[in-house]
Amino acid sequence: MWPEKLHRAVRHSLFAGGKRLRPILCLAAAEALGGDLRAILPAACGLEMIHTYSLIHDDLPALDNDDLRRGVPTCHVVFGEAMAILAGDALLTHGLGVFARYPEEKRYDAAKLAALNAVVDAIGTTGMIGGQVADLEAEEISDPSPDLVLSIHESKTGRLIRCSLQAGGLLSFAKDAELERLDTYGRAIGLAFQIKDDLLDVEADTATLGKSSGKDAAAGKATFPAIWGLEEKIAEAVAAATALPHGGGRLPDLARFIGSRAS
Amino acid sequence: MWPEKLHRAVRHSLFAGGKRLRPILCLAAAEALGGDLRAILPAACGLEMIHTYSLIHDDLPALDNDDLRRGVPTCHVVFGEAMAILAGDALLTHGLGVFARYPEEKRYDAAKLAALNAVVDAIGTTGMIGGQVADLEAEEISDPSPDLVLSIHESKTGRLIRCSLQAGGLLSFAKDAELERLDTYGRAIGLAFQIKDDLLDVEADTATLGKSSGKDAAAGKATFPAIWGLEEKIAEAVAAATALPHGGGRLPDLARFIGSRAS
Repeated sequence: MWPEKLHRAVRHSLFAGGKRLRPILCLAAAEALGGDLRAILPAACGLEMIHTYSLIHDDLPALDNDDLRRGVPTCHVVFGEAMAILAGDALLTHGLGVFARYPEEKRYDAAKLAALNAVVDAIGTTGMIGGQVADLEAEEISDPSPDLVLSIHESKTGRLIRCSLQAGGLLSFAKDAELERLDTYGRAIGLAFQIKDDLLDVEADTATLGKSSGKDAAAGKATFPAIWGLEEKIAEAVAAATALPHGGGRLPDLARFIGSRAS
Repeated sequence: MWPEKLHRAVRHSLFAGGKRLRPILCLAAAEALGGDLRAILPAACGLEMIHTYSLIHDDLPALDNDDLRRGVPTCHVVFGEAMAILAGDALLTHGLGVFARYPEEKRYDAAKLAALNAVVDAIGTTGMIGGQVADLEAEEISDPSPDLVLSIHESKTGRLIRCSLQAGGLLSFAKDAELERLDTYGRAIGLAFQIKDDLLDVEADTATLGKSSGKDAAAGKATFPAIWGLEEKIAEAVAAATALPHGGGRLPDLARFIGSRAS
């Protein structure tokens, strides 16, 4: 049973481009902590699969009803709603599945389970899915509070970004203090990422962005570029990362990239 | 972030009744093999969560468009499509998540990962999701071959039933020969279950069944009560189970129940 059309739908969304931010953060955390990048690469890919599942389901007509993503028509536009729902299900299943399977050496068993638990907490009902629900419910609210806006973004986007770094750290056998620094970094760039996203949504045109621009604000969605300082969050992230071994490797530069990206 | 409405949607479908066949098979396998039922109970519940996710998504308007399940209105009828999609996502996430978390003792680490890998294979694109895709595609075929019908049912229903038994065995530290007997048993009752399901779909009325009756045949869906012998499959399962320690415990009786159930 090899569902060819489903696999095409999965690949359509997974290989449509995108910044690959989550796997890059996972690998950069591992690199800074002396982890084995080759062994951790599958888990990094699992994070991108999970991220892509969330995009496919968020874009469905019953949810955000978006027809453009990463510069190409969304999964349901090309393959139909049924196939898009199942493609998202498949990416979630196998995205978590690679964490259970790789790295295959037995010495990783405990780290794999710890990483899986971190990911499940990050994307479950009190994490990413909860944020998606709150986001849908916030559309009904004419003037959402800054606290609500913050908590939606932290759950919907921030948690998976933070746990990408945790996964890289856990699979590199990081110490607790190092995991905490990674989380301070992750929390700051998660917020910076969202501030920049909202700024781009207001400023950029659809072609550069690869998705419909101005759409969130037009839909009365909670946005908050004005509430939090972008530069401040980047500085916070850089400070936390440079306290890690090897000055945090590529992590400080990645934080700066998040502040300057154009899409 | 505690998404109250989502949790209500999840509970609506998860606690609507149902036979609890998959967790019961998992625990019965564990019991026959001297496993610690208390420790394995969360994983057994995870199987029911995963089964319920598959029902919620299958029932969506874009897929089977069913409005009755387990005798109550389906999730999307009560809570809307967006919430039903997210409730299914949540049940899949946390259903796999409990396998990563429980039992918590370190000696279970390898068994938990083996069980997770078995579950992911069973419900992934070459398992349950693949079966769902093939089922959708078979609706276009006026006269599906017995082989196609068999392979759809084995992927869509059989794989999760088989891996419920494997999970119970793996978490009880079963030997390879015991896992093989469990799989022979699982394969036979999976098929018996589907034969009985199709017979009930033809014979039973909607009230007894708790879902719309005659619907599969009317939709031109692949059914196969006539192709395979129910009694033969039950006997095969009973034989495999009685070769296990303790005569397979409750497993032989469970096989007989599957042949005689009324809903």
